Amino acid sequence: MARVSQEHLDARRRQILDGAALCFARNGFHATSMQDVLKEVGLSAGAVYRYFAGKDELITAIVSEVLTDIKGIFDVVARQGPPPPPDVLLGRVVAQVLDLRPGMRVEGTSYFPRLMVQVWTETLRNDELAALMARIYAGVRAAWVKVVEAYQEAGMMRADVPADHVARTMIAVVQGFVAQYALFEEVRVEALQEGLGALLGMAEPS
Amino acid sequence: MARVSQEHLDARRRQILDGAALCFARNGFHATSMQDVLKEVGLSAGAVYRYFAGKDELITAIVSEVLTDIKGIFDVVARQGPPPPPDVLLGRVVAQVLDLRPGMRVEGTSYFPRLMVQVWTETLRNDELAALMARIYAGVRAAWVKVVEAYQEAGMMRADVPADHVARTMIAVVQGFVAQYALFEEVRVEALQEGLGALLGMAEPS
Repeated sequence: MARVSQEHLDARRRQILDGAALCFARNGFHATSMQDVLKEVGLSAGAVYRYFAGKDELITAIVSEVLTDIKGIFDVVARQGPPPPPDVLLGRVVAQVLDLRPGMRVEGTSYFPRLMVQVWTETLRNDELAALMARIYAGVRAAWVKVVEAYQEAGMMRADVPADHVARTMIAVVQGFVAQYALFEEVRVEALQEGLGALLGMAEPS
Repeated sequence: MARVSQEHLDARRRQILDGAALCFARNGFHATSMQDVLKEVGLSAGAVYRYFAGKDELITAIVSEVLTDIKGIFDVVARQGPPPPPDVLLGRVVAQVLDLRPGMRVEGTSYFPRLMVQVWTETLRNDELAALMARIYAGVRAAWVKVVEAYQEAGMMRADVPADHVARTMIAVVQGFVAQYALFEEVRVEALQEGLGALLGMAEPS
């Protein structure tokens, strides 16, 4: 038997993860069978089980990767100093989330947001994944608390509100927008950016 | 056989819906069996099937009710004129969402947000429910476009941004916050309100 290169192994693993992610995004983790995954990736059971012992291992790999990728985006965008205003930053986060996994586009629509919403529900019934999710979310919050503190130190934002509350609200905007994209598709990042921009500049009635 | 009152029938129906909703919130629509529901509500199969022909009918009833209730809250809060600022309005929406279904509290935590996230994923795999969801979301958006237009007419918000983009962003804040509550529990409404309030008053660097 010919030896296969690490590159080939990695590519094959990626192929399986992308195909499975698409199945899970469409139909949910519980309702998707390994048969569905095999059909989607066009590989034999033997080929797939060489990489993943079963559906649970595949789910754990995909959920970990999704959460790590999203945290990576939040972290990189948060590190830009001095930070641009929230509408610019959050627009960048969302745009990058939608650009993750080009292999998960179906007729121009990213299925990654659907996968993210499926991951949320999966953490509700899986304690191990819930713990991972909580850890990653805490990390994202900590990074964005620093962004908010930079706003406060620059005199751009009132300093008497806990930075963590603002960070959570900013993260909620991303989560809500991703949910809308997953559920209704036709949302553009510019809508979020303009909408948030208008809110940021609000004043008392004139 | 004694005739039963409409009141009794309604109460029994409510009991089944609440018990099933709790099961679905915990474990998802797909992974929950009718056996799980019977166990949760403590009724016989015969008693439950008198009200719902099967799991699909139960799911449709629960999803319709969840979406209608949420739309009702968004609509009532949107109708307050002249509208208070967005942090006050959205805080009210979230507080009322958390107060829906007192029967769905588990150790002080509302499981309604979990049910909402489960409803989102269920609409991804059920075209009929997706159509219902899209119709209801369009209605909510239309009501909140009016709120945004009132801000713009009162000179509280720049008028050159489409009101629909702002309305979507405001709805996204609620969706994201509900997701955080579902996933991490310990979020207080005040955090959202304060966080959003600090964002609304942002200024250029001083």
